[in-house]
Amino acid sequence: MTFRTLHLNAFLMGVGHHEAAWRHPLTEPARLTDVRHYQQLARIAERGKLDSVFLADGLALHGDVRHNALGGLEPLTLLSALAAVTDHIGLIATVSTTYNEPFHVARKFASLDHISGGRAGWNIVTSAGEAEARNFGVERPAHADRYARATEFLEVVTELWDSWEDDAVVGDRRAGLYADTSKIHTLDHDGAHFRVRGPLNSSRPPQGHPLLVQAGSSEDGKEFAARHAEAVFTAQQTLAEGQEFYADLKGRLARYGRRPDQLLVLPGISPIIGSTEREALRLEKELEDLIIPAYGLAQLSTMVGIELTHDELDRPLPDISVETEGAQSRRKLVVDLARRENLTVRQLLGRLAGGRGHRVVAGTPERIADEIQVWFENGAADGFNIMPPVLPGGLADFVDHVVPELQIRGLFRTEYEGRTLRGNYGLARPASRHARIGDERLDPVVVS
Amino acid sequence: MTFRTLHLNAFLMGVGHHEAAWRHPLTEPARLTDVRHYQQLARIAERGKLDSVFLADGLALHGDVRHNALGGLEPLTLLSALAAVTDHIGLIATVSTTYNEPFHVARKFASLDHISGGRAGWNIVTSAGEAEARNFGVERPAHADRYARATEFLEVVTELWDSWEDDAVVGDRRAGLYADTSKIHTLDHDGAHFRVRGPLNSSRPPQGHPLLVQAGSSEDGKEFAARHAEAVFTAQQTLAEGQEFYADLKGRLARYGRRPDQLLVLPGISPIIGSTEREALRLEKELEDLIIPAYGLAQLSTMVGIELTHDELDRPLPDISVETEGAQSRRKLVVDLARRENLTVRQLLGRLAGGRGHRVVAGTPERIADEIQVWFENGAADGFNIMPPVLPGGLADFVDHVVPELQIRGLFRTEYEGRTLRGNYGLARPASRHARIGDERLDPVVVS
Repeated sequence: MTFRTLHLNAFLMGVGHHEAAWRHPLTEPARLTDVRHYQQLARIAERGKLDSVFLADGLALHGDVRHNALGGLEPLTLLSALAAVTDHIGLIATVSTTYNEPFHVARKFASLDHISGGRAGWNIVTSAGEAEARNFGVERPAHADRYARATEFLEVVTELWDSWEDDAVVGDRRAGLYADTSKIHTLDHDGAHFRVRGPLNSSRPPQGHPLLVQAGSSEDGKEFAARHAEAVFTAQQTLAEGQEFYADLKGRLARYGRRPDQLLVLPGISPIIGSTEREALRLEKELEDLIIPAYGLAQLSTMVGIELTHDELDRPLPDISVETEGAQSRRKLVVDLARRENLTVRQLLGRLAGGRGHRVVAGTPERIADEIQVWFENGAADGFNIMPPVLPGGLADFVDHVVPELQIRGLFRTEYEGRTLRGNYGLARPASRHARIGDERLDPVVVS
Repeated sequence: MTFRTLHLNAFLMGVGHHEAAWRHPLTEPARLTDVRHYQQLARIAERGKLDSVFLADGLALHGDVRHNALGGLEPLTLLSALAAVTDHIGLIATVSTTYNEPFHVARKFASLDHISGGRAGWNIVTSAGEAEARNFGVERPAHADRYARATEFLEVVTELWDSWEDDAVVGDRRAGLYADTSKIHTLDHDGAHFRVRGPLNSSRPPQGHPLLVQAGSSEDGKEFAARHAEAVFTAQQTLAEGQEFYADLKGRLARYGRRPDQLLVLPGISPIIGSTEREALRLEKELEDLIIPAYGLAQLSTMVGIELTHDELDRPLPDISVETEGAQSRRKLVVDLARRENLTVRQLLGRLAGGRGHRVVAGTPERIADEIQVWFENGAADGFNIMPPVLPGGLADFVDHVVPELQIRGLFRTEYEGRTLRGNYGLARPASRHARIGDERLDPVVVS
């Protein structure tokens, strides 16, 4: 067995993942739209040798902005500004396949990949929400339709990335030959959702294809991930659930001719860190005391699909069907959590406030490292999606105290191995579909 | 009459505006996709106290990539990376209204405006080309349809920018009130082209509205500019033509209730600079000698709408109708130029190679400054769109030699006056359509 190294992504969200983060004295909510805040976060993550930073996204104002610091910056424009002040860290942006055109998306990620020297990644989402549909003048598409569109979208995007072969640009000034047009290909794609001639108006991205990331945990989502994704963000509450998801997803790869190591599973974890257990629990309590129940109730009502009121705060969660398919994998997780731990609605709100269903672990750096190690070494994770409760402090604490512990244990890098996001994730650079087998110009890493 | 200051925009295009720039020893064509090249250009422009940098764009691979360095970076991602390394310079990106959705465009420019601290500008184009239509699976829309869509597009975008009032974010941690939702507005726009609910998921941009720029010179284009644009890029060959265009456009403003100083007219100029006239002419000749006639012939054929061959190189331009309306304003300019100066096709190619129909002036810094001054002081320009033949050298020469001459003459700033792009262009910050008259929070600059 080859040496396995842990992978760590910093999930950047405003001034913290805890829904009350903006009320805590450790944060400055005015920094929500301040690029210097995010630049500081990216630099902290890079100081910790993390693989990547990641920005979630939605195409509508989600949640109750009366009670939370919502409405930040657009991920792709923001990541370019982070690329400019960092050298190694990967840059992953969420972009929807439902409300975009493949030509634009291929081009923007190609551009970000060029700008960052091969550090771009795309978190592919299909935008389930009603509010998003209404900003684009359409009815909310059905789950299966969204995934059918996403599949064709991805075909077109990867074909656009391949439309210039790696050696298409010749740059022979004397002969006056800039590009060898026999190595620049039209697509003439004509499918159910898109007709795209191509080629892209940008040379092939440094990574060949920017990294493909996905986060859906529905049946369609897992199948899409097994076919296309190279990293998967997921919410798993217990080790057993994490192991089940990991085995399930890795087990699906073979049917697409892929090896298990070609997809990394990265569960979310919100680490509430203290130098003592008591200190960590105190921070957790401070944040819990700042929760506004009306905010959490509205979020939870949307998640479980029934309207919950203040009157129900101190009762158990009502019976809720979890047999639904589709966008409802988060519903099952929440209902299972409430039942397993016999939580009242108020207690459940406290558990969800930290990570919206992602696992929250409060403790010393050693304790956090233990949790990470157990999951990593027991078939539940290839790494983690780190969701600090408050930012920037929570990320700095992770980098300065948990990362060294992981390094001492030999689990995590002390220097970047690669020059690209793929390089650091240990993933190969895809060959162009137009590259000729045995072509002496073929990049060696492609065939490794 | 109040003091009028000249405005200067640096039009950044690959390694230079001359079509043979990539073959000249002064350039490095490999820098076409290197963000550091553009960062260097933005810093040079800022060193010269220029108002802004500007990136053109198309949504297809235009022109013959065998013979020119085409296929660079996407403007919005690139400008964010430039924002990160500059403090004052405005950042203007071209984005099409024909192949985009207003929600995305409003959001990306809001984001760039936040990231840059109020330096974003949008060059609004309607994408005339056949090749672009084919990358989005549609038939090329008619000229009038494109402008009708653009008008509605702009209504929606500006309404989205206004959807959060300037003081919507309260940020009261103690009370748990982040935003006053009575100051965040849905649009419920329902028009011929778009249905958009809103609000935007981003607070109001620092400039209120990022600067609106336009470049169409057709009848529809000029009318659109008169109604919406705050700066107009235009190609005018002679002082008389420049004066006519200037008077025409400024004369259209009153019918939209606008004053002449609310729109700046910025003709393009490609300055070929030498410390002596002889040196400038030598550089011009060097570039001309590197022209590949096949490239220019293909470009010119597209421009004039007939297929020109090598056999016609040393003959006058054939008779061509210039009575067409619509996207053909560039055709008229080219045909007029050939007739006025009695040029052969080969000579015309030489004249177009420098600036694709924009004026080319070769000479000493004083000579370039003279040209700028004459147009500025005689009703033909409020400033200029500077199109250096080679980059970065041509921009550095302009900044280091022409700008000081303009400063000595009292025509150009020696320090930035404003903190925003609007501030430097001398344009007011628009009040939100939801702002209440007499509201004590109303920004004073709005009512100036």
